[in-house]
Amino acid sequence: MSVDQPVTVEVGLGDRAYDILIGSGLLSRAGEEISRRLPGTRAAVVTDENVAAAHLDTLKAGLEKGGIQPTVITMPPGEKTKSFAHLEEVVDGILAARLERGDVVVALGGGVIGDLTGFAAGIVRRGMNFVQVPTSLLAQVDSSVGGKTGINSPRGKNLVGVFLQPRLVLADTGVLDTLPIREFRAGYAELAKYGLIDRPELFAWLEVNWQKVFAGGPERAQAIAEACRAKADVVARDEFETGDRALLNLGHTFGHALEAATQYDGARLVHGEGVAIGMALAHRFSSRLNLASPDDAARVETHLRAVGLPWRMSDIPGELPDAEALLSFITQDKKVSRGALTFILTRGIGQAFIAKDVPASEVLSFLRENHPASRKAG
Amino acid sequence: MSVDQPVTVEVGLGDRAYDILIGSGLLSRAGEEISRRLPGTRAAVVTDENVAAAHLDTLKAGLEKGGIQPTVITMPPGEKTKSFAHLEEVVDGILAARLERGDVVVALGGGVIGDLTGFAAGIVRRGMNFVQVPTSLLAQVDSSVGGKTGINSPRGKNLVGVFLQPRLVLADTGVLDTLPIREFRAGYAELAKYGLIDRPELFAWLEVNWQKVFAGGPERAQAIAEACRAKADVVARDEFETGDRALLNLGHTFGHALEAATQYDGARLVHGEGVAIGMALAHRFSSRLNLASPDDAARVETHLRAVGLPWRMSDIPGELPDAEALLSFITQDKKVSRGALTFILTRGIGQAFIAKDVPASEVLSFLRENHPASRKAG
Ligand SMILES: NC(=O)c1ccc[n+]([C@@H]2O[C@H](COP(=O)([O-])OP(=O)(O)OC[C@H]3O[C@@H](n4cnc5c(N)ncnc54)[C@H](O)[C@@H]3O)[C@@H](O)[C@H]2O)c1
Ligand SMILES: NC(=O)c1ccc[n+]([C@@H]2O[C@H](COP(=O)([O-])OP(=O)(O)OC[C@H]3O[C@@H](n4cnc5c(N)ncnc54)[C@H](O)[C@@H]3O)[C@@H](O)[C@H]2O)c1
Ligand SMILES: [Zn+2]
Ligand SMILES: [Zn+2]
Repeated sequence: MSVDQPVTVEVGLGDRAYDILIGSGLLSRAGEEISRRLPGTRAAVVTDENVAAAHLDTLKAGLEKGGIQPTVITMPPGEKTKSFAHLEEVVDGILAARLERGDVVVALGGGVIGDLTGFAAGIVRRGMNFVQVPTSLLAQVDSSVGGKTGINSPRGKNLVGVFLQPRLVLADTGVLDTLPIREFRAGYAELAKYGLIDRPELFAWLEVNWQKVFAGGPERAQAIAEACRAKADVVARDEFETGDRALLNLGHTFGHALEAATQYDGARLVHGEGVAIGMALAHRFSSRLNLASPDDAARVETHLRAVGLPWRMSDIPGELPDAEALLSFITQDKKVSRGALTFILTRGIGQAFIAKDVPASEVLSFLRENHPASRKAG
Repeated sequence: MSVDQPVTVEVGLGDRAYDILIGSGLLSRAGEEISRRLPGTRAAVVTDENVAAAHLDTLKAGLEKGGIQPTVITMPPGEKTKSFAHLEEVVDGILAARLERGDVVVALGGGVIGDLTGFAAGIVRRGMNFVQVPTSLLAQVDSSVGGKTGINSPRGKNLVGVFLQPRLVLADTGVLDTLPIREFRAGYAELAKYGLIDRPELFAWLEVNWQKVFAGGPERAQAIAEACRAKADVVARDEFETGDRALLNLGHTFGHALEAATQYDGARLVHGEGVAIGMALAHRFSSRLNLASPDDAARVETHLRAVGLPWRMSDIPGELPDAEALLSFITQDKKVSRGALTFILTRGIGQAFIAKDVPASEVLSFLRENHPASRKAG
């Protein structure tokens, strides 16, 4: 395994600032990097069965080189793990290891493990040290950065959690080689999102270089670093999502509705795929509202299709509920004040903005026009 | 019910500063006080069955006067309610009421309800607004101020939780009239604690005026306000307990060991009673270590006895485990570095300090000398 010099992105949050290291071979350096920042710490590692099979031994060896003998807590893989029952298990595992407030909890896994583990680290002894070792592309470019942690409730996704910034993020780009391609693509949608929000040059670069990002050359680390920079910028401006941070939800309003409409059945649609379709729809909708040029929407669709991501509702296998039902999933998710919805819309690639007054009626007509049923019929 | 002008104590935490209002009749003013600070808010009230029976209607009427129609979530009374299962119930109740991040969760009850509710408010949507309406003396002088929230784990008390400062504390001194006398006394122990830590004039004042505090005259509100000031001072200096805040644990090392030794059986010992005995022991131990005069220890014991609180181990009904076992409860509770323990000791009344190097062997001899078994034998 090659250990190149990693790229460092700093998340500027004052006395809670931290580094994101991005590069291959970082699992082997975990002990060194952690104990340099938290000398004398003890650790628990939380992971899932898939990731444990592929990467736990490497991480353990890396920790041991830094003098850290971790306790390991292994969860089942999958979104259902983000539950109160599993939270209680992780909390109990950390307490059973007799870790103190100054010790560290390490999340080794995708966004599910990162969100669950960060929440546990945030509540054991009212807050321990937390380190993210994201192993999915989605986690490396999105969920491991920014301090949102949490679990799901039967009443909705991510409704329960805390803000807890990690002390360090180690994004080992080599571990992505074992990630199923469909998961890689799903993470890629979130990566492309930063280009669409406010980095048009990133999007243009991805249009040219995406194959190298998938193949794993230095372009992969470069793209991930750029995504982390983009997210770190937003987070530093608006840590607790009282304003700008909402831009990160580009594509997520439509995306969440589609996830809900498919009962969060990963066989039909995983989160990043929902976001891909959602981003294409957000661009198409913005063009329909005469906010952006239809050429930009077409460019987004073309790129998503090129990388093998779904980009329209008809790409989802199986039947979808009708437009009215989709709208009700959207309004369930958010405050509706007098028939107006808050949406992330765009004036073109790299020019997303928060629109607070989108008429629900416009959304409904748009959903009708773009619904697979009406398309087939029309 | 008389509505006097309440006393206001400000907790100086910068942009999270908040007021503690202390006075009688405050439940009836809850709606006005809350909606002045959080205009247009919706609310959930969390309470326990005992407190609901005595005070919920008054609070509801008070909220409605301020235009707030709350959802009510009622828990069983008692320490066992501070569990993951009840946390999940409260979280679900808040979500079922479809409250948003800017809405408010109100805790109406003693420390159990305050700790559980604050934790739930801190994690629903990663943090909602929180208001404390403490109804036990302990909650009014201690647990409602300072932002520590949490639940118990089978592995220990208060091991899981968050820091969440309330937006407002309404300490209605009138509601204490329905509090069982034993609970009142237990809360009084924590009140006297502030005098013993660093307010010798408060302790001297209590020696003279304690009967009026029990009877419920203006002295009651005065004493509670002084206690809140004392706690607010410490919290403003050290919100996350990295230093000085540990002084608030005066009496708690011995106290917790006694609570554990009696299996948290409230019929034998409630928390404040453990603290009373613990404070007397901390003074006696300090005098044995030649740090303080035995006269001060005697003064503490005399006052605790006068108000009807237990002050020595032999005041606990039933058998206690032996000194070795008590020491093991103490060392279980804290980091022991090379046989040395951290303890809150004192140089005299109002002169408590953090001692980091107390030899476990000294603690053991002291526990042996003061153990009921050896006392009866000797
Ligand atoms: N906290 C945030 O800011 C934030 C942001 C976006 C998404 N999320 C959350 O992230 C979650 C989705 O994350 P995800 O897509 O990483 O899901 P995930 O954690 O379920 O990982 C996807 C799958 O890939 C497997 N896997 C992960 N890394 C692997 C590797 N290197 N090799 C082989 N298999 C591997 C996992 O076991 C799982 O089966 C959602 O719960 C979402 O809500 C959180
Ligand atoms: N968060 C903190 O900083 C902090 C500090 C100290 C203690 N605590 C916690 O506080 C808890 C103890 O608090 P507590 O002593 O208030 O216990 P509690 O909440 O159990 O109340 C004691 C009893 O009095 C009843 N009660 C409360 N108010 C009443 C009223 N006005 N009229 C009639 N009955 C009433 C309750 O139903 C209960 O049965 C413990 O769990 C302890 O860990 C927390
Ligand atoms: Zn996403
Ligand atoms: Zn106490």
